[in-house]
Formats: sequence, C-alpha cells, structure tokens
Amino acid sequence: MFSHNKRLMYTVRVSDPNPALATLMLEQFGGPQGELAAAMRYFTQALADEDPGRKDMLLDIATEELSHLEIIGSIVAMLNKGIKSQLAEASLKEADLYRALNSGGDSHTQALLYGGGPSLTNSSGVPWTAAYIDSIGDPACDLRSNIAAESRAKIVYERLINITDDAGIKEALGFLMTREIAHQKSFEKALYAIEPNFPPGKLPGMKKFTDLYVNASQGAGDTEGPWNSGEQWEKLDMIEENLPLDGGSGLASVKLMGAEKKAADALAERTMSVPGADPLTGADLGAGPGAGSPTRQR
Amino acid sequence: MFSHNKRLMYTVRVSDPNPALATLMLEQFGGPQGELAAAMRYFTQALADEDPGRKDMLLDIATEELSHLEIIGSIVAMLNKGIKSQLAEASLKEADLYRALNSGGDSHTQALLYGGGPSLTNSSGVPWTAAYIDSIGDPACDLRSNIAAESRAKIVYERLINITDDAGIKEALGFLMTREIAHQKSFEKALYAIEPNFPPGKLPGMKKFTDLYVNASQGAGDTEGPWNSGEQWEKLDMIEENLPLDGGSGLASVKLMGAEKKAADALAERTMSVPGADPLTGADLGAGPGAGSPTRQR
Amino acid sequence: MFSHNKRLMYTVRVSDPNPALATLMLEQFGGPQGELAAAMRYFTQALADEDPGRKDMLLDIATEELSHLEIIGSIVAMLNKGIKSQLAEASLKEADLYRALNSGGDSHTQALLYGGGPSLTNSSGVPWTAAYIDSIGDPACDLRSNIAAESRAKIVYERLINITDDAGIKEALGFLMTREIAHQKSFEKALYAIEPNFPPGKLPGMKKFTDLYVNASQGAGDTEGPWNSGEQWEKLDMIEENLPLDGGSGLASVKLMGAEKKAADALAERTMSVPGADPLTGADLGAGPGAGSPTRQR
Amino acid sequence: MFSHNKRLMYTVRVSDPNPALATLMLEQFGGPQGELAAAMRYFTQALADEDPGRKDMLLDIATEELSHLEIIGSIVAMLNKGIKSQLAEASLKEADLYRALNSGGDSHTQALLYGGGPSLTNSSGVPWTAAYIDSIGDPACDLRSNIAAESRAKIVYERLINITDDAGIKEALGFLMTREIAHQKSFEKALYAIEPNFPPGKLPGMKKFTDLYVNASQGAGDTEGPWNSGEQWEKLDMIEENLPLDGGSGLASVKLMGAEKKAADALAERTMSVPGADPLTGADLGAGPGAGSPTRQR
Amino acid sequence: MFSHNKRLMYTVRVSDPNPALATLMLEQFGGPQGELAAAMRYFTQALADEDPGRKDMLLDIATEELSHLEIIGSIVAMLNKGIKSQLAEASLKEADLYRALNSGGDSHTQALLYGGGPSLTNSSGVPWTAAYIDSIGDPACDLRSNIAAESRAKIVYERLINITDDAGIKEALGFLMTREIAHQKSFEKALYAIEPNFPPGKLPGMKKFTDLYVNASQGAGDTEGPWNSGEQWEKLDMIEENLPLDGGSGLASVKLMGAEKKAADALAERTMSVPGADPLTGADLGAGPGAGSPTRQR
Amino acid sequence: MFSHNKRLMYTVRVSDPNPALATLMLEQFGGPQGELAAAMRYFTQALADEDPGRKDMLLDIATEELSHLEIIGSIVAMLNKGIKSQLAEASLKEADLYRALNSGGDSHTQALLYGGGPSLTNSSGVPWTAAYIDSIGDPACDLRSNIAAESRAKIVYERLINITDDAGIKEALGFLMTREIAHQKSFEKALYAIEPNFPPGKLPGMKKFTDLYVNASQGAGDTEGPWNSGEQWEKLDMIEENLPLDGGSGLASVKLMGAEKKAADALAERTMSVPGADPLTGADLGAGPGAGSPTRQR
Repeated sequence: MFSHNKRLMYTVRVSDPNPALATLMLEQFGGPQGELAAAMRYFTQALADEDPGRKDMLLDIATEELSHLEIIGSIVAMLNKGIKSQLAEASLKEADLYRALNSGGDSHTQALLYGGGPSLTNSSGVPWTAAYIDSIGDPACDLRSNIAAESRAKIVYERLINITDDAGIKEALGFLMTREIAHQKSFEKALYAIEPNFPPGKLPGMKKFTDLYVNASQGAGDTEGPWNSGEQWEKLDMIEENLPLDGGSGLASVKLMGAEKKAADALAERTMSVPGADPLTGADLGAGPGAGSPTRQR
Repeated sequence: MFSHNKRLMYTVRVSDPNPALATLMLEQFGGPQGELAAAMRYFTQALADEDPGRKDMLLDIATEELSHLEIIGSIVAMLNKGIKSQLAEASLKEADLYRALNSGGDSHTQALLYGGGPSLTNSSGVPWTAAYIDSIGDPACDLRSNIAAESRAKIVYERLINITDDAGIKEALGFLMTREIAHQKSFEKALYAIEPNFPPGKLPGMKKFTDLYVNASQGAGDTEGPWNSGEQWEKLDMIEENLPLDGGSGLASVKLMGAEKKAADALAERTMSVPGADPLTGADLGAGPGAGSPTRQR
Repeated sequence: MFSHNKRLMYTVRVSDPNPALATLMLEQFGGPQGELAAAMRYFTQALADEDPGRKDMLLDIATEELSHLEIIGSIVAMLNKGIKSQLAEASLKEADLYRALNSGGDSHTQALLYGGGPSLTNSSGVPWTAAYIDSIGDPACDLRSNIAAESRAKIVYERLINITDDAGIKEALGFLMTREIAHQKSFEKALYAIEPNFPPGKLPGMKKFTDLYVNASQGAGDTEGPWNSGEQWEKLDMIEENLPLDGGSGLASVKLMGAEKKAADALAERTMSVPGADPLTGADLGAGPGAGSPTRQR
Repeated sequence: MFSHNKRLMYTVRVSDPNPALATLMLEQFGGPQGELAAAMRYFTQALADEDPGRKDMLLDIATEELSHLEIIGSIVAMLNKGIKSQLAEASLKEADLYRALNSGGDSHTQALLYGGGPSLTNSSGVPWTAAYIDSIGDPACDLRSNIAAESRAKIVYERLINITDDAGIKEALGFLMTREIAHQKSFEKALYAIEPNFPPGKLPGMKKFTDLYVNASQGAGDTEGPWNSGEQWEKLDMIEENLPLDGGSGLASVKLMGAEKKAADALAERTMSVPGADPLTGADLGAGPGAGSPTRQR
Repeated sequence: MFSHNKRLMYTVRVSDPNPALATLMLEQFGGPQGELAAAMRYFTQALADEDPGRKDMLLDIATEELSHLEIIGSIVAMLNKGIKSQLAEASLKEADLYRALNSGGDSHTQALLYGGGPSLTNSSGVPWTAAYIDSIGDPACDLRSNIAAESRAKIVYERLINITDDAGIKEALGFLMTREIAHQKSFEKALYAIEPNFPPGKLPGMKKFTDLYVNASQGAGDTEGPWNSGEQWEKLDMIEENLPLDGGSGLASVKLMGAEKKAADALAERTMSVPGADPLTGADLGAGPGAGSPTRQR
Repeated sequence: MFSHNKRLMYTVRVSDPNPALATLMLEQFGGPQGELAAAMRYFTQALADEDPGRKDMLLDIATEELSHLEIIGSIVAMLNKGIKSQLAEASLKEADLYRALNSGGDSHTQALLYGGGPSLTNSSGVPWTAAYIDSIGDPACDLRSNIAAESRAKIVYERLINITDDAGIKEALGFLMTREIAHQKSFEKALYAIEPNFPPGKLPGMKKFTDLYVNASQGAGDTEGPWNSGEQWEKLDMIEENLPLDGGSGLASVKLMGAEKKAADALAERTMSVPGADPLTGADLGAGPGAGSPTRQR
C-alpha cells in the first residue's frame, strides 16, 4: 500500500513564472522518458515478478519515481502559477493575455486546455500513452529495458539542465538526473544477478545464424567494427547470391484445398489486371484536353 | 537507397490457413516488439548518427529488419488466404462465414476491416504507433535501447514458437528469433566500443546521490541484493526522518510579484473552500428521502 | 513524497488461475474508468490546487487510488500466473498452449506480448492514454469531473462483481467499489464547499440564452421534462423561423484585403466547379462498357 | 434523421485573418472539451437510452452541439482564409510565407498539413480521439459525466473569450459559452429526475467502508473539511497499523496445482536472482578503467 | 444549422439480440471506414470550401452520413439490448453472465466498459481517431480521398452483409452500402468538374522524372503492365548504376560554421566508436562462464 | 528481400542548419501524408495481393518510398545538426541554448526528446500511427486510396517548396513531389486495368437508391451541379415527407423474450425519469442563495 507525506523528496525553488519553460519540463512529467513512464514500468513489473529481491527493488524504485513525478510536476505548477491566475481572473487586457499565453512551446494549450495545471503530456502536448511502456514479463528483458530507460531519462534531464538558468530548478533537475544514474546501477546489478541472462529465455538460437552478420547495406561507407568482424562473426556480403538463406524457393506458400481453393481462384480472376491493356484513366481525364492524347480510347 | 528482390530472405511454408493464428503472428508485424518497430528504430538512428561504423551497422540491421517484416507479413498473408477469399467471394453461407471469421483473437477485425491483408496492428488490433520507438539521439542510450529491444523481440518469437505446431512456420520463426540474438550481440559490441559509456552524456551526477539507495517500499518482504548493498551502495531506510533529502523545507515555491500576485490571490479567494461548511450536496439529494437526513439544510 | 508497504490495502485471494477473467479485470487497471486514471486525475489536480484543504484531500485520494491499482493489478497477476509460467517454460504441447492462451478476451495478447504481467491496457488491449484525464485546472469543474468519474468506476466494479463467482475476487472488488462511493461523497462535499459554484468560472452567460431550450430534435417522440419545461425554461420549437438566433445573416464572414483578397480570388477561380459541366468520370470509366452510356463524352 | 440549413445558428463575423488565433479556437472544435466530443457523447447515449424523455433531450442537445461545431469551425475557416489562399497560390515570397505560417501555436501544421481547413485536432495538433468520451451506458453516471463536461466546456470558452479582442468572435463565443450553462442545467434536471440516483447502480457498498476516509497523505498540511469530517465520516489516520483493512495477510495469492505449479516453480528457479552475488555489470564495464574497481571479477 | 427528426432514415428491424454481431457492426460506427469518419471528413471540408456548389454537396452528404451513423448505431443498440439489461440488473448467475458477455469479438469490453451502448470504437475496441481523416484542404485531393473512402465503405458493408443472416439487418446494411455507391458517383462528378485536376495543385513536376518508372523491386516476378510500360513511361532497371538520379554525390551535407562546427566535432569525438576495439560486452558477461571465452579481457 | 546502398536516391545539399524548418519537413517524414505512410501502405498491400503485376508494382513503389523516406529524413538530420551538437555538448550558455531550441514549430521537442534525430512524428510532434493507413485488401478500393494518397503527398510537397528558399532543399523536394505524380499515374493505370472496377466488390446496389441524391442540407445556398442533377440522378428535396425511405416506421426494434425482456423492463423502471418532477438539482444548490428560488424543495 502507498502512503504520502506532503513534503517533497527535494525542495523546489522557482525564481520566476515562465509558462514556456513549463512546457519544456513536461517532457519529464508526461513525456515518453518521464517519471510516470518510469514509475509505471517498474510498478507493473513488480506486480508480476515472483523473485522476492527483484520485486522489492522494483517497488522501491517505482515508489521513488512517483516522488520524482511530484517534484517535476511541482516545478511545472510553479512556472505556470502566474499565467494560470491571470487567465482565470482575466486580469490583463485580451491582447496582453493572448501574448502571455503564446510565449512558446505548447504553452497556449497548457493554459487554455489544462488551465496551467501540469498535464500528462510531453512538451508538444502529446498525451502520455502506455505504449511507452515496453515491459514484457521476462526479467532478463525487462531489466535491460529498465537500464535503457534510465539512461534515456538521464540524458533528457541533462538537456533540460543545459537550457535552464534558474538556479533552484537546475538543482532539483540535478538531483533527479543523478537518481537515474543510481537506478541504472541497481538494474544492472539485478540483471547480472541472473545467470545466465544471454540470450534471454529458454530457446537457443539456430546455430547457423547466431554468428552471422548480414551486410545488407553496401556501397561507399561500408565499414568494419566489432559488431561485424572478429572471432564471433561470419559476415555475409554476397547476399543476392545466397537468397534465400535457407536454400529454398524464397517464396511464400500455403496449401489451400476444396472450397477455399475455389474461392481464391474466383477472387484472383475477378480482380486480375487485364493483360495487355493500356486503359484510359482518371488521370488522363483530369489532365485536360491540352495534356496530350490519352493512350487508348475506350 | 533501398532496393528489393522478390525472393524472401527465408522461405515461408504454411501448412494450412488459420486466421486466428494469423492474428497472433501480427504481434511481430505491427506490434510494439515487432519488425516495423525494429526497422524504424535503427533507420531513424542511422540518419542522424555521424560515426561511420555505427551508421553502417544501423543501416545493415534496419534493412534486414525490413526483410524480416516481409517474412512475418507473408506468414500472415498465407494464414489468411482462405478467409480472405471466402469473404470476398461470399462463397459460404452467412452463418458459416460468420463462424469462420470469429475463429479467435481479433481475426474478425482482420477479415472485416483489413480484408485478410496483414495490418500494422498488434494481436489485439491496436494500430502501430511511433510511440513505440524510444530513440533519443544519444548513441550510448540508443544502443542500450536497441539491446533491450532485441532481447524483447527474441522472447516474443520464442513465445510464438511455443504455441505453433506448423513446422514451416516454426522454422521461419526460429530463423527470425535467432537473428534477434545476433543483432543484440552487434549492438552490445557497438555500445562497449564507446569508451566510457556510463553514465551516458557529459554531466556527472551529484556525488551525494549517485550511490544512494532509497528503500521506499518497506515492511515484510524487504530484501537485500547487489542492487542495494555492497560497496557501491549506501542505503537509506529512515526516509521520513530525512525528508527532504536536500535539508530544505520540502515545499514548492515561486516568487510572484505585482499583477501576477494579485491575480493569484484573487483566484485563491474566489475558489476557496468555505471553512467550517458541511454543505448539502448532490449526493445527499440523490440518495433520496430514505437515505438519512442530509447533514445541513440550505 | 510517496512511500510503500509491501502489504496490500486489502487481501487478494484468488481461487484459480483464469487468463480470460484477468483480461476483464484489466478494465479497472489500465482502462479509462480504472485506478490509474483515478490516481493521475487527482494527483495532477493536487499539484496545481492552492486551496490547502482541497489539495490535501486530492493527495489523500490519489494515494489511495494507487493502492487500489496495486490490488487490481495483483488480482490480474494471480489470474495469469499459470499461463505465464506455462508459456515461459513451454511446459505444454504447442496445440495445448495455443488453446490455453486463446481462452477469451484479449488473453492471447496478454500472454504473448505482456507475458502475463498486468498491462496498462483495457480489456480489449487498448493502451492507457492521458486522453482519459479531463482535468482543466478549475476546481468547480474538476470536482464535477471527479464526481462523475467515481460514479463510473463504481458501476464498472459492479459489472465485474456481477460476472465473477470467485469469492475472494468478489470480496476485493466489493471493497474497491465501496471506496468509489466514499470518494464520490468527499468530492461532492468539496464541490459544495465552494460558494457559489454554478455556473463555474467568472463570466456570466448571455441573459437571453441561459434559460433557452432548443428543441433541435422533433417529430414523434418529442417529450417534456424538467430539463425543458418549468419556470427555468423557455422552449424554442420554431427553429428554422428564428435562424440565426442573433437575428443576423447566419453567414460566416471575414474581411480580406489587398494581397490576401487577391490570393483568395485566384484560389477560388483555379479550383472552381465548371458550371454546367456533366463530365465523364472515373466511375463512368470503371463501370465498364455494359454499364450504360456515360452522360458526356470528352 | 438529421437535416441541415446552410444558415449558421449564430452569425460569425471575423475582423481579420489570424492563423495563430485559429489554432487556439481549435480547442473547442477538435479538442477534448470541444463540440465534437459533446455532440458524440450525447448522441451515442441517446441511441442506447430507453427512457423517452431522456432520449429526446439527448438528441436535442447532441443536434445543437453539431450546430455549435459548425460555428466554431466557421470561425477557424475565416481566420485561416488568408494563409490558406496565399500558401495554395504561392502569392508571397518563400521567406514571407514561411514567416506567415509560423505565426504561433501549431499554425504551421494547420497550413502545411490541413491547408487551412479546420482540423479535428486540439490547439497542439493532437487528433481528436473517442477516448475523450466517457459514456458507460448508465444514466445516473452518464448524466453526471455530461454535467461535468458542460462545466469544462464553459470554462474553456471563458478562457478563449478572455484572450480575444475581435468583437465578432467574442460575441459568438459568448453565445456558445452560454449554451453550455443551459445544457448543464438540463442535465442536472435529468439526473435528479431519477430517484434515487446515489450511489448509482444496484449494488450497495460494504457498510464498513462507505463512510471511511483514509488519510493516506499525512505530514504538515493535513487539513479537515466536510470531505473527511462531520457526521458522515470516520477518519482513519493510523493506516500502517490497520493494514490491510480486511484484517487478513495483505498478500496476493492464487492456488496453482499440478502442471501449473510445476511450471511456476521452474520459471522461478530459472529466473531467480543468485543470492549473495555482487556481479560485474555492463555499467561497471562502461564506466571505464578510471572509474574505480568493479566489485567482483568474473 | 442541423436539426433532427426522431424517425430513422431507414427502419431497423433486428430479429434477436446478439452482442458478438454488435461488435462486428461497430466497424461502420466507430471504425476507420465507418460513418463518423465519413460525416466528419465531408463536414470539415465543407467548412473551408469556397465553391458554392461543392460546399452544398459536401454538406448534403455529411448530413446524410450522420443519419447513417444513427442507423448503424441503432442496430448496435438493438443487438446489445439483452446483455445490457442482464448485466445492469444482474439477472443471471455470475457464470452465465460471464459466458454471455464473452460471446465473441470484443463484446466483453462493450458490455463491461460501455454498458452495451454503441461505442465509437472499431470491432476490436480501438477508439475512433481523427487520424482516420485525410482531408488536406485542396479540392482535387480531397475529392479523390472521398472517392476512395466511399469505395472502402462500400466493401466493408458488403462484408458485413455477407456474414449476416438477420433479414432486417441485411436490408438496412444493403441500403447503407448502396448510398456509398451513390456518394462515390457524386464525388467523381465533382472532381471532374474541376478542369484540369491532374496533377493537383499549381506546381508542375520536373519533366525528367514525371514519366520515369523506377523498377526498385527486381528478380523473379518482374512484370510489365500499363503502370510501367507504354508511351507514357520510361522504365529504369539499372538503378545502382544510375545512383543518385541527379548525378551528384548521393550524400547529405550541410554547411556548419564556427561554434556549430566546433560543437559537432566535439560530439563526434566524444561518442565515436573506438577503432580496432573488440570489447567485452554485457552479452559476453551474461552468456555465463560456459559460453565460450569472451574475445577480449579488460 | 530488401537491400540498401548508402548513396541516396537524390543528393541532399542543405545550406544552413535551421531546426524550425526541420520541424516542417517532418510532415513528410512521420506525418500522415509522408513517406513512411506511403511505403507501408503499398508494402502491406503487396504482401496480400495475388495478381503478379500489381504485386510487382506495389513492391517497386513501396521500395522507392523507403528511399524517399531516407531523403527527407536526411534533410531533417542536416537541418538539426547544429542544435543537436550544441545541446549535447552544452556549448552555449543556458539562455542562448534555450532560445536556439525555441526557434519555432515543435523544434523544442525535437531537440529535447529526440536529440535532433529525425522523429517519426508530424510537424506538431504527433507520433506516426498506422491509423493513417487505409488499405482494406480490395484492389479496386486500395488503388483508389493510393491515387488519393499520392495526390495529397504531391500537394504537401508543393506547400513545403513554397515556403523554402534553400535551393538544395527545394530541388530535392521538387524531385520527391514529381515522383508522387508519377506514382499516381501508375496507380491510375492499375485501377483501370481491372474491368469493371465500379462499383467495387461483387454486390450490386439496391436499384432504388443508387441514383438518388438526398438534398439533406437546404436553405439559401442550395445549388445544382453534375453531382446531383443530370440523367444519372433523381434528387430528393422533400425529405421529411418521405421519412423513412423504406416506407416503414422509422423506428429501431428488436425482439426480446423471456428473461431478457424481464431484465430490460426492470432496467427501464429502475432508471426512468420520474414524470412530472421538477427536482432541486446540484446546479440549484451551486447557484447560491442569491440565485433565485429553486423550483421545488425536497
């Protein structure tokens, strides 16, 4: 069960209201790399994980991310407090209010639609979606997904720090960024505490194709690196000549019989391209009389 | 520039049409862990990456994933070929067609809306969205995201293999699953060829919070593991007592002045909760006369 | 700041695994009327509300809804525990697994994509979206939205109770349903503690149109009720005769000048319908020679 | 059946074209609180409601909302008429056109993608989705949802009025805002004409939990109000001590047997965290040689 | 302005309730090819079109599509009337209700979430989105889009007719299907009444590339048809040899200067792949000791 | 199978970085009329089409569209190269970086979230969705959809050309625009090579309604054109008098029996509007004491 203390995990001191900056901060509130995504990612994993240690860790971090969501949301609320009040009370002339809420980003939507409250959208106003969450219920995969997610969140915080000169916000963002580093470390430890963890799952790969590198993009710029050369790799350059890789026909087939076959044949015949036709088309009609003679009259 | 050969990268031999199985296969065609997501993830990264080796690798693998998309899509097309034809030609009685397209999954939508063609949806009919793609333009992050994505795709193929007893489909799925293992290996090599790569980005964390583990979920079930104990960690158990972690007030504040302050005060007063009131409410009205006396009459 | 105790707010006792029933329960986990929507609705409102009492109440209830999310998610995890394990371990023959994960609802997607973990989707597999949250940052509106939301959640729980015969699940659902009633009561009290609260906002309506009822749907079935008759209403039946209601032209106009006017005229001329034409069309072409003579030859 | 008269319900007089202002107006055309959402909300409810009076009212108001959609859409079309023509006819130099369509909001997308026609998006360009509609087919809930929706729409119109100084637009917006007030009144009447209407549905709550207020957020700022004190409430402050509220174990459990139990055990063992390990991790590798000694060598 | 008559445009006679069939009908209510999409497509075009004739036609057909939406929604409501009532009144035992609402399609969601009312979703429960609408504000394009949309709607109705044996529903669907044919005819007439209409817009194509057919997919199965041969076409088979088609370098370039160039160089260096490295990776670690020797020790 | 050459199909020469212009170009990268939509539209059709010629054509054009996606994506990458580097390296002061990434459009999101890489979003940041793809698996429909799609893409390129004064970008856009013209021509040829192709599908329309034009929008502005007059049309003006068009009751009905009928009656009674009531409502309560006397006291 969750409980809450009205003190924030980290104090939020904002110098001045700034609705356009608020818009940018939303990226970590309701954006794909933001704190709600983090919290929900770990919380849903925790509910299904049976390993006591991992479950506990996932709940610890999920809970902390909710507290981060509260911090970043509070920053947004502070930055919007001026415009929110002025719009609600109509305390400026229309033209001045219009300018004030058009200060940048999607701050106009934040004011008009959300009334200056922190919305679960990204910095372009796109509503948060659970499509951002990539948990699939296998710990060796989900921990890798978490590692990647923490690294991405770290960078988005770094970018926000780079563009903010409000000292109080900068400090709170620094705290949040640092915690992503710590979380990544935890998830790394948990991943390698599963032995073995590569490849994930139970099924081994097909021997023949595990170490094969398919050089599908060729021409000037073809390069070698540890990802396609060295003792773990066999590189395939002559692709066309080896197509398909299984030595078969390279075609897709299915066995249709009886009524299904008959229906398929009827459909093919009904919708076939008439061979040899060069029909007059809608484009020919639409090109107008001066456009050259259509190739065939009906 | 892309080019195409009409032979598949791996031959697709389907024994019998089965629209419900086709629905399941869609998970790797238009689902979040499927081949379009993979191809687009690497392709968009390639366009912006300036490192010649990584760019080449990303294009190689993106191109191969498009060929995988073609394989899994061909499996879907073969599995749906019967129902597609029978519905288009109305070659069965209504009640029989109705049963045939209600064979499971969202096969009814596949037939009615998409006419048996492979749709860019997952196995529940949810349209593919670029929200599945988590590239952020930093190679140390994007490679981690790619590693995680390949591991997830490997597992979803393993699950599909586990539920399929059509030998031809099983073999093609085995090929596709294996290639995800190979791709994960490539991305791992590319990640560790960046030195250093942890933490990603340029900004270091705040010393004080990098090795801190916040034990935010407590009570029975609290556990130790390498993610919260050992020499890399300091664990915080007494959270409430240390709140906020910066030693400040734990409150959010912003400096409003002049007209903004006045508007904020006016808004607060206009929308305040009247102290001491116990008002009659809509629920009191709606509970009906027999529901006990409302606490306060107007 | 949030903290967590690993005990649930209400004990979850599930008799037997049942992945199809799990699918239905998702409606209150990741569906539009579910607990994540509730928690996020109140949490985001709390961050921006300046009234101390309302802010506290919103945080209380938001926090409790997170604990509800944990309960319903735990029910889903328990119901899926069998299929999750059997699919991961491939402990059944393919055909048996195929049948097991096709047991109803979108249970196939839950198993294949989410591995049996609770996903933030509704019972049809649609990912949760912040578009479900209708907070706009005005307390007299948001409280009404909350009242409505609690009433909806109550009914969806009632429906789930009506279709479940597992005693342990039924009891937990009964608890959750009851709490929605209690929350609705709180929000009603908070709404009527704002005086006045109708109409919301500061601007009054236009006198002439506040009490007007426009009888826009006529014919058999036209009915009177307190919503269109009584001393608060003036009913308009003769609409066409009174169109537009402002007595003007009923047209939309804008003043274009100079270059804009010239461009608009050029566009109109370039894309105008040729008067008097009865052109040969693509449909005429496509209808085929036996379809009757096209009305006009080019 | 619907019919249409080409006169608007209210005359639209726009002074000057202004594509940025058009963007803001879209909030009530294709935004979540806009007129399409209103019309579709009531129309879909009407189709399923069997009460003759409510059905008639819902059709009356749904039809009127379609006429409002036409008004607000006409405002958008007028505001965009200049940029639409100039872009289509390329009647300005490139740099001037570029500036003209970057005048604010998402006006660039409105011009480039929608050609200046009113699009069913909100003011940030997010496409309208039926996820905005919260009808659930129970009149005591749906009427509450409608009441809330009308109150929200009233406020968004008020905000638009506050930022517009074009007299003709202001007047039309005033009309639309007023009609939301009138509609809210109708829905209130219809709700209380159902007796009783609270709690909605048939099932009563569990006596013990109906009047309970759970004080889940504590610490400084804890407040009393009619929502948690008074004769209708019992307040629970000592939560941890009373966890879970049913007096049970607070755990989630399910009975697995036979093959399912065996599979679950196998899965747990295969994916368990190795106890006592402090493994070398990818982060350790990635931190580079200068980052301190990894805690354990393989 | 719209008005409404409570009689339907076409009488709806449903023999028996059938919630699974209701699910299928939703495809034309809230699906991508359904009536709401049609109505909104034409209505939004009408608002921005200045040609009096086309505007009138678009309003005529948009209004009729709303009446079609009412017909198909009424079919859904009738098919769901039984399950709606039984779930609301809990008039069956739990297990029987459970079976009743799991009758097929996404009927479980229709009952649980929408209470049997017609929802603006497709037959898989995907909410309607304005992303279905492809209007771009150019009549020669929009009319082509409308022609295509009507042809698609015609086919989806045909499919529904093919699987329905309820005579009353079949007749109503036949009416709706026929109207799509009539509407397609109207839009064709309106397209060809614009002269010329191909290519759309004002800008001509680049002479050299207008008649070029790029044979980008080669190998067995290469075919000729009127789309790539005949007097309107020049076919390019030797693509690689002619790459790029403009005779340039085939590379992407931009001129960076000063600070931008310096930053770009710094970024490239910081994130470069170390040449010649064959690093130990996370996959090497995760493969476990028995997996073969990692290629390089740190 | 796909393969790739690192040379572009058309050389991309960008003069200067410009992140706001990059935002606009995204419309053809990840927007609804953009190249991914085109490629996926034709590729998915190809997989299911059995006609050898059409299948080949669809693969040719799908492959070419992928190469176009690469061109437009490369333009975006070049335009963003400066801001990407400066943000990653923090090579400007905060306030300057803030200004640089707020240069217009949704360029702030492009920089913060996507790091300057081309994202699969439109110019407002809306993620690409497969809901843009309208293929339904019938060639006579899908080809019409393709014709319309090509015409739309042509126009969006024309608009981009009109607002760009960078000569290199303008030339590349001109190439891409021209290819859409060529593709439209191919699809037109393929459509008319199916004989007949109108109406699509097998079922004929109902004779009585095929040539009927319903004049659903009346009043001033009613117009005649080839879409509603001439020998192919019968126009219905007196709609109300002819309602419903089938001569029946114009009502929706279903036969409920036994338990279903009983439940429906119980539901109707439980939720009926009490006749004659003029209840006190929440709005009456909320209007406050000074708002006039509520019409009825409880």
